[in-house]
Order: sequence, then structure tokens, then C-alpha cells
Amino acid sequence: MIQERIAALRARMEEEKVDAYLVLTDDFHASEYVGDYFKCRKYITGFTGSAGTAVITKEQAGLWTDGRYFIQAEKQLKGSGVNLYKMGEPDVPTVHEFLEETLKENECLGYDGRTVSTKEASELDGILKKKGAVQNGNLDLIGDIWKDRPELSCEPVMELDVKWTGETRVSKLARIRKSMREQGADLFVLASLDDIAWLLNIRGGDIACCPVLLSYLVMTEKEVLLFANENAFPDAVKAALEADHVSFQPYDAVYSYVSSLPKGKKLLLCRDKVNSRLTASIPHGVEVIDRENPTLLPKAVKNPTEVENERIAHIKDGVALTKFIYWLKTNVGKLPMTELSAEEKLYSLRSEQENFMGNSFEPIISYGEHAAIVHYSATPATDISIEPHGLLLADTGGHYLEGTTDVTRTIAMGPLTEEEKRLYTAVLRGHLNLAAAKFRSGTTGINLDYLARGPLWELGKDFNHGTGHGVGYFLNVHEGPNSFHWKSTPTRKADTAFEEGMITSDEPGYYEEGKFGIRHENLIVCVKDQETEYGSYLRFEHLTMVPFDLDAVVPEQMTERERALLNEYHAQVCETISPYLNEEERAWLKMMTRNI
Amino acid sequence: MIQERIAALRARMEEEKVDAYLVLTDDFHASEYVGDYFKCRKYITGFTGSAGTAVITKEQAGLWTDGRYFIQAEKQLKGSGVNLYKMGEPDVPTVHEFLEETLKENECLGYDGRTVSTKEASELDGILKKKGAVQNGNLDLIGDIWKDRPELSCEPVMELDVKWTGETRVSKLARIRKSMREQGADLFVLASLDDIAWLLNIRGGDIACCPVLLSYLVMTEKEVLLFANENAFPDAVKAALEADHVSFQPYDAVYSYVSSLPKGKKLLLCRDKVNSRLTASIPHGVEVIDRENPTLLPKAVKNPTEVENERIAHIKDGVALTKFIYWLKTNVGKLPMTELSAEEKLYSLRSEQENFMGNSFEPIISYGEHAAIVHYSATPATDISIEPHGLLLADTGGHYLEGTTDVTRTIAMGPLTEEEKRLYTAVLRGHLNLAAAKFRSGTTGINLDYLARGPLWELGKDFNHGTGHGVGYFLNVHEGPNSFHWKSTPTRKADTAFEEGMITSDEPGYYEEGKFGIRHENLIVCVKDQETEYGSYLRFEHLTMVPFDLDAVVPEQMTERERALLNEYHAQVCETISPYLNEEERAWLKMMTRNI
Repeated sequence: MIQERIAALRARMEEEKVDAYLVLTDDFHASEYVGDYFKCRKYITGFTGSAGTAVITKEQAGLWTDGRYFIQAEKQLKGSGVNLYKMGEPDVPTVHEFLEETLKENECLGYDGRTVSTKEASELDGILKKKGAVQNGNLDLIGDIWKDRPELSCEPVMELDVKWTGETRVSKLARIRKSMREQGADLFVLASLDDIAWLLNIRGGDIACCPVLLSYLVMTEKEVLLFANENAFPDAVKAALEADHVSFQPYDAVYSYVSSLPKGKKLLLCRDKVNSRLTASIPHGVEVIDRENPTLLPKAVKNPTEVENERIAHIKDGVALTKFIYWLKTNVGKLPMTELSAEEKLYSLRSEQENFMGNSFEPIISYGEHAAIVHYSATPATDISIEPHGLLLADTGGHYLEGTTDVTRTIAMGPLTEEEKRLYTAVLRGHLNLAAAKFRSGTTGINLDYLARGPLWELGKDFNHGTGHGVGYFLNVHEGPNSFHWKSTPTRKADTAFEEGMITSDEPGYYEEGKFGIRHENLIVCVKDQETEYGSYLRFEHLTMVPFDLDAVVPEQMTERERALLNEYHAQVCETISPYLNEEERAWLKMMTRNI
Repeated sequence: MIQERIAALRARMEEEKVDAYLVLTDDFHASEYVGDYFKCRKYITGFTGSAGTAVITKEQAGLWTDGRYFIQAEKQLKGSGVNLYKMGEPDVPTVHEFLEETLKENECLGYDGRTVSTKEASELDGILKKKGAVQNGNLDLIGDIWKDRPELSCEPVMELDVKWTGETRVSKLARIRKSMREQGADLFVLASLDDIAWLLNIRGGDIACCPVLLSYLVMTEKEVLLFANENAFPDAVKAALEADHVSFQPYDAVYSYVSSLPKGKKLLLCRDKVNSRLTASIPHGVEVIDRENPTLLPKAVKNPTEVENERIAHIKDGVALTKFIYWLKTNVGKLPMTELSAEEKLYSLRSEQENFMGNSFEPIISYGEHAAIVHYSATPATDISIEPHGLLLADTGGHYLEGTTDVTRTIAMGPLTEEEKRLYTAVLRGHLNLAAAKFRSGTTGINLDYLARGPLWELGKDFNHGTGHGVGYFLNVHEGPNSFHWKSTPTRKADTAFEEGMITSDEPGYYEEGKFGIRHENLIVCVKDQETEYGSYLRFEHLTMVPFDLDAVVPEQMTERERALLNEYHAQVCETISPYLNEEERAWLKMMTRNI
């Protein structure tokens, strides 16, 4: 099937005089997850992972993806004729290197510029210029051959009351306009969906697990133009927006709107977050002020209402998860259970909680060796039975009106090997040490990451993913700019200073291919520690309230301080969650959170 | 006297049609310390501090310096007619702001371009262009009026045998030529004195405490031209250099050499480390490849011979310092002692060690509240008596043929306050934790700095200096690029990945103005920890072998692990240093390094 699709694509490429066609994973908004309409890369390669780039030339077809997906991609590409390029492995060319090697003079690289960032397009341009080749970003060749392509999503939009958001949209708009004035901008163009939803206090359902709506937003000192499908808006929501001077435009009208801006206007936008077709639409004579979106930090820094709501969301979520772990550990080997049935069980427990709005991302319930595949998500084809031994990894989260959760627990389903316990303990030490950091204002994720990795590095181990990411408020589960990582790269900066109110995940892990996987993840909120003559000092507080599994902990491998940190956390979990449990669960939780 | 000098300068300025004359503190090589010949700023203002900039116009004379020197500068400028500009104080213009305010159209700013960095000259250029003013960097007007100016230093040069350096100059030159070829360079121009000394395995004495010689070096695939005063070279050293195809040129001939380079040549140099007259001498048509000096990393990464020698140097230094601390603690209150007499005592103890070549920097022996002044160095005017109470801070170092040391100990001279002990212990915890880090290859000083600051940050305290700097091999005591700091700035990057063989100081501190100062400093060498499927893991080993003062440590304020780290270190100090002590000293050291 893939081979047929590639043949059809090549036929279209020939008609358009395109010699290489680039297919990225992005939608038109550089969203982390994309709706089905946008899954062109999956359509043309068969690879379902969340990250990857395909290039199809007349003779070759290649897929680039990163270490998380090597195993999965190898399986899914088998027999497709698509070569796997393992990003970061020695002697494997990058997409850019491949294009530079492959494209000849006067040849043409085609792509859909709406799915390509402005930065990427300009880098491609540099490569093509070197080779005397050209590009055409006004194509959608996959769309042309994709007969049964899903419709663009148009899920109903809801308004989020100020009791959840803590700030009205009028107040948010005023803050952004202040920032526009400071930067001398006449207009501000916003294409990132989480920023639009945050700014207008609305939520949608156009991307699975992400409560956003497909839209662009342009604001001036007076106006707010929302480019979106009006049909998605119930009358009351529409009226409320219009009352606050938001007016509606068709979703795809943003390109013609921008292209007809008069000369001399000053346009604020963040090139990295606006697609290349939109920036290409800006007429000469319009001055672009390329800055970080002024919505980014206000969205990341949760206000006191949001933080208090988040604590409530995490109690509900903690109750569901604690019940889930109790159910797993007491029923394994007695009741039949698989990765998928466990997933359903957890979903039903979360659904019992008031204001639960759905999963905040595709759940990862992975047993045994499956847990070593970092981004594994069970399907009927891969689903396996959970047995009364070894480790089960559950990385899941929920949306509530009170906020978004993201939590990982690794659960001992029965006897463990010494190795499993040793690594469980080492990862837990890192998790606890990071969450316990007290630090001076100005400190970034790069400064603190070592706390999480240190115990693994001492063993010559590591994990190949970031240690933590920012989390939205009933919004995207991955929402920067705050993060933990030990290395900054152009696409993954961990150089944002933490501020009071930022919510970040703390999720070190360890993965032993073919054997087991471990990850411990809490969300932690940044709070003030103290104010001294040296300035402000900050620390974190745990939001997540779920016990770790003492059956997997080796207390002698922890320092006294680490044991104290675990005991303190467990005491807090027990006190917070117990009131919502039945008697057996409560007794079990007390035992599970005992001092060690 | 200063007023006469300024009048003479103004007369010369008028002759040269210069409206403002800028006098920096640098020599021609951006050295950290400068020889007497270069002290033009001191000559024209009377201010003797190590940092400052003077500007003389027809009507005004100003000196800019930083907070360390406000009191001293006020005294020294009294009656000179030179105004003090306190850098960093509110409403005080910077040198650049002053120039921008003062200079009028068509006016001329003069300076000696050999003392001005290429970067500074280009910033000045920007300011002058704005004002329609011009600059002349080919002047040395202070030199013109300075009748009894000291001669350029011409201290004898010595050759450093390969048994000390571990690598011949022929091998080093071959490595640099390989790097030149990789970068497509025909020539490489080197102006930083430590790089030249390292590359040629020679040492000089032209700068106090820095065993370097005034020189420039230009190398091609075949040639090495050393621009230096030949008289500084004993015949044997000269012959050995010439045998390795190094040829001599007069020191100041480098400018005409560079200015007569033929078109089309590709010249490798590091703009930040070459003065502006030299870069201004490069003819149009010569292509400049502006990169970090290829000598920088090879110089910072000590080879196994250098590392083994450094261990020997640190044993000798440890013996001297241990005897010093013993002498201090057993004689305080009995024998008269002051900061300066203690300095002499330590120097005499170091001098007893074989191959001792002098202090590696101006010693800091500061008692009581003096220790809170980070850059304090006792003079007869400030010298105070050391009493049998409180803390004495000793930050000193020596050059040996076996390498350079830099060590700080803070010593309890008698009873301490609880606060002094608490901070002594907190700083020590940070020191020990940083030195105990095990980390993956690629880790930088920014990743690890938190380990040193964490215990202070928990208390809402901090110290306002870097946590560590690279150290040369019988060369400059501050020699990058390796360092520890929590923030990277353009002038102070802590983003160099540690490599096996790098030697760095680990020196957290704490300063309570008007009361006391604490700093604990060891040199630590980066060594391999292990090689695993994740790559190389590194760690540090202590080079410095000197006890900490248990009289100031509160064991209950340390974690078990921290106490174990201290006990391990002390056991190593005791074992290593004891054989070189007399019986009383040995017994004392055993007690001072007891397990806690």
C-alpha cells in the first residue's frame, strides 16, 4: 500500500516538476500533536510515531526519526521500500545533508509551506541556493493523492470561566497590548494554538488530547481577528467573544489578510512559531518584529487561581491513580489484565472524578520489555498480558477543568530482579533530589538537571530524553518554555529561568532494551522559598499525589536525606489521598507510604 | 605631578589633533596582569588599582573603575584634577556613554591600538560613527611624554624540558598545523602569551607571577616566526628553538610583517585575543578566519606527564601549606603574626620545596573582616595582626617545574561564632559535592555549578564570583576555557565540556561584609570514570592535598555522604603528606584529618 502511495506521489511530483518532496509531521501551527487531517507523513510512510520527516525523490524514499522510535520505525517500515535514517547515529546524514547530497542544479524541492516552519524554510533555502536548486512551498501533493483524507476537525469550542482561568480575556488582551506597545508593534500575529486558547479563555477539541481549536489570531490595539471555523462556536461562546470585540474570519483567510497588509505596518510575530507560507505572505514594506510570543511567559506562569485549581486536579488524579495501583497490585495474577485493559480501568477511574475532561495525552501503559520503548503505546496488535512479576510503567494524565496532570509510576507487579530494584531506586533518587532543589532566581533547567541524572551517571547509566517539560492549564501537556535538560540545543532550550507559578514535570527514567523500563514523574510547581539580601530564592512543590512503590525501593541504596524526602512525600500523599479511599484502599495506602 | 603630566599629554594631543585620549589598563596581549612598561593609566592618573580606564580631553580628565577600588581611587586621585567615575553606580556614565556625550563632529579619539582589543575598537568605532567623529589608534602619547618609562621587560627565557611538558614543541606544532589545514588557513597569528609559551615549551618572566615572555608568533605550514626580544634568550634556548625551525624577529616587527602579507592568504586568528592595531594591520584581500585559538584546548587538556607532575607539585605545595597551617594554629597568640608576616612565612615554606619557581599570583592572606573583601591583598598600610580567634583566609599558589597550584584554606585561629561555623560548613559541603561529581562526557560547568552553590542557596546565601577556573601548567593561574559558573555571559562562558586532563579550581566561598570571609579551594583534575554503552563518564580527582579545618566544621550540618567525602579526602591528605612532616606536625595532621 505504501509503495502504491509513493508511486502516486511520484506521478504528481513529475507533473509539478518536483524532484524531491519533503513531508514533515507538523500541522499548520507547529502543534506537537496533529489532527488526522494532517497525518501526511504517516500516510506516505506507514510510520505512526509522533516525530519524523519523510523525503521522497524519484529513486529514493527515506524516513528520519530519533532514538525513541528506532525499533518501532524499523518494524513499521519493513517492506515499504522506505529507508530508515536513524537520527544522531554515526554516519547517518541529516535530512539537510541528504537533500544537499541528492539535489542537483535546477532541481526542485517541493513541500507544503503551511507545515514547514519559517526557520526550516530559510535553512532549506540556504542549502538549495548552494546547490543551485529551487523550492516550491505552495504544494500539498499528499493532499492531492489522499482520496479518503479526513476532514479538518471542527469540534465544539467551550468557554473557560474565570473561576478556572483566574484572569479574564479582557485582562489578558490588555497585557498583550501593553507588550505590543512596548515593542512598537501595530499588529500581533499568533498561530500557536495553545496561545490562542489561553489568550481567549476558550478550549476546543481539534487535536486529540489537546483542548485547542484550529485557528490563527491577529490583534491590533483595537481589534482581535480570530481566523477559525465559526461552526465550532456555540452561540453563547460566540456572543461572549464578540462582546469582548473578537471578530470571526474564515480559518484559511489569514493568508490573504496578511498578504494585503498596508506598507509601513509593524508586525510582531515569532518566526519559529509561524509557518513559512504565512511569513512568505507578508508584503515587502511591512516590518516584522521577530520576538518570542508575548503570550508565552504569561501562559507558563500560572496565576494563584490556576495553581490552587491545579492542586485540586492533582488530588482527584491522585485518587484515581492510587485506586488504580491498588487494583493492579491486588488483582494481578487473579484477574486477567493486559496493557489495554489496564488503560481502560484507569480511564474509568479518572472518569469518576468531577470535571474530568479526558486524557491529556495518549496513555502509556507498558509492561515488561515494552516499557523500554520510551514512547510505546499499546495497540491491540502489541497488547500483552500483565503478569505477577516485573515492572509495569504507567505514564498517563488527565485534563480537568482544574488543570492538566501528567504522572508516571512504575509498579512492581510481583518479584523483581536486583537490577530492576537498583535502577528503580537510582531513578527515584534523581527524581526526589531534583524536586527538592532550592535555588536562586535566574536558575534554569540546565543548572538543575544534574540533580536528576547524577545517581544514574554514577552507575554509568542515563536516559535519552529530557528530564522535564512545562505543562499547560487544561491545555497542552507539553507547554514550554520551562524545562529540565542538561544540554541546550537550538530546538530544545533549557535556558528559561524558573518563575513562581511555573509547572514542570520531573521525570527521569531508565530503559533496558528488551528487559524493562522505569520512569518516575511528578508535576512540580515553582514557589517562593525566601527573599534575602541576595534576591529571591525559589523551590518546587509536588503537585502529583501518588505513592511510589516501596516494593521496588532499596532503602540502603539511598542517602539518609533521600529517604527523608521520600518519607515526607509519602506522608503528604497518605494524608491528602486517604480521605477519598475505601477502607481496604486506605489501609493499603498507609502501608505503601510507610516510613523507610 | 599628575597635573603636569596631564598638561604634557594635552600638549601632545594638540600636536596630533586629538580631542580625547583613551588609556586602558591592558598590555599588548590582553594579559590579565601587566608589566611596569604598560602602566600608562597609572602614570597619567596616579591610580594603582588593577582595573580602570582613563579618558583625557582638553577640559576634562576622568578615571573609571569598579566597586573594589572606589575607596582607593578616591584617595589616590585627590588633588590630581582627575574625576572618579564609579562604574555601576546610578547616573554614572560608562566610558562609552561619556565619549558619546563629549565628542563632537570631526573630533578625534586617540589611543594606543596595541592596548585595545579588536572588539573594543569596533565598539568605539560604532560610537564615533554615530557622532561623525574619528579615531586614531596609532598613537602612544603617554609613551611620548613618559621620560623615565621602564624598559620593556626582557627577563631570561628558559626551556621547559619534555619531562615536564610531556610533549615536544615539534609535536605541538604538528598538531596546530593539522588544525590549520583543517580550517584552510595559510597562517596562524598568536598574540596570547600563555599560548605562545605553551606551544614552544618555553617560559619567561615578563609579567609578575606569570611565566610568559612578551612575544607574538606567526606560523605557517613550514615556518614559525617568533617576534620577541632575542636578548631574553640564552644561547642554548635559542639554538634549540632554531633547531626546531623557529626563527626570531624583533618584537614590534609583527605589525609590518602582517601588513605586508600578500593578498589571497588565509589568516587564522582569534579576534578576541589579538589587539586592534594588529587586526587593523591586516591588508584587504587577506581572508581572516576568526576562530578560537587552536592552542586553547590542547593547552587546557593536560597530558598524562603533566598530570603526574601536577600531582607531585601539589604534594610539595600541600607539605608547605600543611606546615603553614600547623605553624599558624600552634603559634597564634604566642608569636606575633600579621597578614604580611604570615605571607612571608608561607613563601619561605614553599621556597624550601625543590623546583619552586615563585608565587603563581599575588597571595591573599586576609584576617577577619579583611577576608570579606574578595580581592584583598595586604599592604603595609592595611596589614593587621592575626589574633587567636576568628577566621583567616589564605588564597595562595606556587609555580613549580611540576606545575602550578592555587589553593585556599580558611583557618580557625581560635573560637568561632556559630554563624562562622555554619557558613564554613555550608561552603565545605558545596566544595565536596562539586568535586565528587560523576558525569557524562559533554557536561559543562553550568551543569555542575549547582552542586557547589546548593548548600548556600538553601540558606538564602551565595557568593558573587565564579566557582572555578582553569589553571595552566607552570603558566597562568587563570587559564580557560574550562570553568564552573551557573550563568554564562558573553565575557564569562562556562559552556566548555570537561575533558580528561583539564585542571579546574573548585572554590565556593561566602563573604559577610565587615565580619568574615570563607573560601575553600582545591584544584581538581578531570579523569575518566567509566566507559559504558552510554559513552564516556568522567569525574574529578583532588590534586590539592591540604587539610580542611575540623575546628570550623559542624558534622551534624553535613549529610552522611558529605562526611564520608570529607573523611576520604582527609585520609588521602594524611597518607600523602605525613611522610614529609616532622613528628609533631604528623601527630597534628593525624588529629586534623580524623574521621568525623
